[in-house]
Amino acid sequence: RADIRQRHIALGPVAVFGASNFPLAFSVAGGDTASAFAAGCPVVVKGHGAHPGTSELVGRAVQAAVASCGLPEGVFSLLFGTGNEIGTALVADPRIKAVGFTGSRGGGLALMGVAAKRPEPIPVYAEMSSINPVFLMPAALASRAEALGKAFVASLTMGAGQFCTNPGILLAVDGPDLDRFVDAAVEAIGGSAASTMLTPGIHAAFDSGVTKLAGSGAVTTLARGLACSGPNQAQAAFFTTTAEAFLADTELQEEVFGAASLLIRCADVAAMTAVAERLEGQLTATLQMDGEDKAAVAGLIPTLERKAGRILANGWPTGVEVCHAMVHGGPFPATSDPRSTSVGTLAIRRFLRPVCYQDIPAELLPEALRDGNPQGIWRRVDGELGHD
Amino acid sequence: RADIRQRHIALGPVAVFGASNFPLAFSVAGGDTASAFAAGCPVVVKGHGAHPGTSELVGRAVQAAVASCGLPEGVFSLLFGTGNEIGTALVADPRIKAVGFTGSRGGGLALMGVAAKRPEPIPVYAEMSSINPVFLMPAALASRAEALGKAFVASLTMGAGQFCTNPGILLAVDGPDLDRFVDAAVEAIGGSAASTMLTPGIHAAFDSGVTKLAGSGAVTTLARGLACSGPNQAQAAFFTTTAEAFLADTELQEEVFGAASLLIRCADVAAMTAVAERLEGQLTATLQMDGEDKAAVAGLIPTLERKAGRILANGWPTGVEVCHAMVHGGPFPATSDPRSTSVGTLAIRRFLRPVCYQDIPAELLPEALRDGNPQGIWRRVDGELGHD
Repeated sequence: RADIRQRHIALGPVAVFGASNFPLAFSVAGGDTASAFAAGCPVVVKGHGAHPGTSELVGRAVQAAVASCGLPEGVFSLLFGTGNEIGTALVADPRIKAVGFTGSRGGGLALMGVAAKRPEPIPVYAEMSSINPVFLMPAALASRAEALGKAFVASLTMGAGQFCTNPGILLAVDGPDLDRFVDAAVEAIGGSAASTMLTPGIHAAFDSGVTKLAGSGAVTTLARGLACSGPNQAQAAFFTTTAEAFLADTELQEEVFGAASLLIRCADVAAMTAVAERLEGQLTATLQMDGEDKAAVAGLIPTLERKAGRILANGWPTGVEVCHAMVHGGPFPATSDPRSTSVGTLAIRRFLRPVCYQDIPAELLPEALRDGNPQGIWRRVDGELGHD
Repeated sequence: RADIRQRHIALGPVAVFGASNFPLAFSVAGGDTASAFAAGCPVVVKGHGAHPGTSELVGRAVQAAVASCGLPEGVFSLLFGTGNEIGTALVADPRIKAVGFTGSRGGGLALMGVAAKRPEPIPVYAEMSSINPVFLMPAALASRAEALGKAFVASLTMGAGQFCTNPGILLAVDGPDLDRFVDAAVEAIGGSAASTMLTPGIHAAFDSGVTKLAGSGAVTTLARGLACSGPNQAQAAFFTTTAEAFLADTELQEEVFGAASLLIRCADVAAMTAVAERLEGQLTATLQMDGEDKAAVAGLIPTLERKAGRILANGWPTGVEVCHAMVHGGPFPATSDPRSTSVGTLAIRRFLRPVCYQDIPAELLPEALRDGNPQGIWRRVDGELGHD
């Protein structure tokens, strides 16, 4: 029999597009750059125009690190420029083999289009759009409606709501317990200060999205935050509609990036599940639940697994831990590639490809595949995982 | 800290396109169907028109297996039809979440286009086109040119050359050792019987490709097989050209599916490497080498790793073992997705996506993620692989 061994190697140079809302974690030296480097890929970053100074500082730090490691200069590049021209040219360049992007659905779709039209199409990992449904289960509402209302508003308004994981819709069974939740949330939002958003563009998109929701005949405005007192400030916004209206109008699923959320009043848990079934792909799905909600939640989870990359209970989706098990990803349009995560160690897989070595003489094998396991790594040999 | 756990689940229903040339291994119940099933995905097969009877027999066997396992009927479907209409509609259907395809570059590109234009783009795993370069290294040629010539022709003509891994180009340093190889190969090809190809379409494409190569001013015909004696028969064909001519004409890289191969005479090993650098992505790269070739091969391998999914020494690429380490894949246009393999256990990854569970109550966790590891599987817990 043939001697067949396999390892994963770098996919090739990666284009990374910094996000506006995380100048560190999702920009020049963020998770995309880190996981591409970890895979062995050179990186070309297109810096985001929202924070050119921070981008340059971080870029110079990476450049210094590349030099002090004795790596070739081409391992890292940072490009600036307004408009789409540079980004489009970067993704179209035949030397680029993959793309990491965090931003708007429109931006992500545009880059996916450029990548698909190349003579050699390449993978695009775009993290784009998510409204992060929160399911307020009946027993949880009955036992702690007011506390949930306050905690919801704290998550909604954190950082002016400029998180990909911001809780953009809530689902609950209509009734007096939900009314208590709404009262608490309305009070908290009514007292929330207007916050300056990151860029005029984000602010304009938020205002436009909120105006559109407020103007929908099927939507009622429950509360707005305190008035603005400066440029690019946003007032938090809390709306409500019915399950029927939500299902009848797909535009109500569109993300409003910022502190805006839509409560969907449902007749019963079955209606909550029906709405969940019709949701687009999401980064997260959150369950606020108590012990008595378990049977209902058990019925909901198979749907949520198909819809979201991360399912969480009794927390809020806005925190994303960097760890082995994290999935910051999800079905389209949350991301362009549901097989991937942009946060956590699994993110490295996006930039690797397998290569197999058949009957290659021992001295020519890469070290990771040599007899005796000189690197002391986990390997599967004849089907058995181990350190052999 | 949050309790965060993760597993991979099925991507969703998969459309599988059977290949013409492997009615069993790459068709109705081939590797694509098997790995999609293993991932938990329902499968809809578009049967290949070249073997409808075999497809139906295999389809009925799968149907019976689905029934005897008590699975829903929708777990497996088999569609027939001429033309592209059914396949296009299948890939465009919003319920389909991934595509497996083995066939021509044109067919694969068409399906990739349909998938990319969907409102929800989906991954396409298309195995398309590869000319599988064979590097005849100097010491190997010196020591066993005649044996290599005969073995090459055996690999080339097996199954009328209708393998994705058929050795379509050879690279070697010009000189008397190569002449001995050519003499042996010419003699073997000259005595090889014409073989009936699988379909009239494959036969017509082979004839057209061979005619085009033979008519190129830069190409010399070295040998043809014995004359045909029936319909759809193909004569093996062996051509030669120079490295300069090959680099000057990208059309010489086009796959001729069947028993046709092009020998590229190079001035030295550096010229062989230069040609390798300009090759498109390949399923395989083969080295015929002896001990004294090791230094030259060491210089070639980094290029081959970037170009091919599998690198093999002193064998022929036409055998593909189903095992953990196999990679039957490679950079575009060998496949549409260099991160994947369509053969071997790694093939399952194409149809999985990660889902993460944060602070989900123990009873609601999937069994694979529960405390105490009730399934007894390998898991990474707090960073450590084990059976905890």
